[in-house]
Amino acid sequence: MSTVTTEPGTPEAPPARRDAETTKAAILKAARHLLARHAHADITLKAVADRAGVSPPLILKYFGNKDTLFARVMSFEADADALLDAPLGELGRHMVRHVLDSQRDRGADPLLRIAFAPLHGDHGDVLRANFRTQVTDRLAERLTGPDAALRAELAVATLIGLGVMYGIARGPRLRASSVDDIAGRYGPLVQAQLTP
Amino acid sequence: MSTVTTEPGTPEAPPARRDAETTKAAILKAARHLLARHAHADITLKAVADRAGVSPPLILKYFGNKDTLFARVMSFEADADALLDAPLGELGRHMVRHVLDSQRDRGADPLLRIAFAPLHGDHGDVLRANFRTQVTDRLAERLTGPDAALRAELAVATLIGLGVMYGIARGPRLRASSVDDIAGRYGPLVQAQLTP
Repeated sequence: MSTVTTEPGTPEAPPARRDAETTKAAILKAARHLLARHAHADITLKAVADRAGVSPPLILKYFGNKDTLFARVMSFEADADALLDAPLGELGRHMVRHVLDSQRDRGADPLLRIAFAPLHGDHGDVLRANFRTQVTDRLAERLTGPDAALRAELAVATLIGLGVMYGIARGPRLRASSVDDIAGRYGPLVQAQLTP
Repeated sequence: MSTVTTEPGTPEAPPARRDAETTKAAILKAARHLLARHAHADITLKAVADRAGVSPPLILKYFGNKDTLFARVMSFEADADALLDAPLGELGRHMVRHVLDSQRDRGADPLLRIAFAPLHGDHGDVLRANFRTQVTDRLAERLTGPDAALRAELAVATLIGLGVMYGIARGPRLRASSVDDIAGRYGPLVQAQLTP
């Protein structure tokens, strides 16, 4: 069924573990891809498996079932860790860089899954709730001054828009620009909401 | 088949024309709704007709066929007219107001359809090309100074993000705020790209 026989997280087998982590990442990537294009109810485990190049039972082994796999795909926690990993005074530029680097290096985006919430029916509300608690509210907790929660929403809005323009609208000038250039232009707009 | 017997645009019959315009708007709204949730290839004319509460032949009468209907739905021209209808010095706030008013009053957004381009396969490229020529490039033509085309993309990015945060992520503080408040906070971010 699979050449990956070591449970993920087994520390005494680094090469096999690497394989397991690579396989799990491929499964998550496949599920994200499908969730950005199809309604939740229309996606089968087999479709995820086919796209990831693995067998359906391997997905069950790693993620339990379709619901737990999609719960993982619908979480923003790991992405938010990286997105928010900078001192507040430099956070605007850092977040712009992180969005652009994620798009360029991984063809992914820490925030963009929220744009596909309408596809997922009731599951869209799970995505929205996760987004709020794991991204927006978490950013708001770091802000001081009035209207921190609103300012966090507006800062995150600018970043979502950057991701849509880069990854979906594929703005040609944005894509032809350096990350440094965009961080210098766009970072201050984000920062204006963080430390006004 | 239908109670609307007057051709759209016939000036001597105002009440019937109003009916025709209302019906056409309902058809376009239904098509937009479905295009934001389903792949282009999966949407039937009958599904659009059912959602709009009209018969498929009436859609053919007004829009020709499915392709011409969707070409209309994939155009940003009418929306861009309203979005860009302000002097350059006030355009940032105007565009923010227009995005928020469109969301609140019509449950629509002049820009947000671009976020669903990945759903539409080859048709997604039509949407992207329209977006570029009808929105971004048209805005860029009004800007002076260096990097006008890039600045236009970044300004439009901020507006898309605002629309996603309002209409899709449904940020609760944004939705609870007045349009005036948000225009005052967010308009300057947009304007900074227009007249830096």
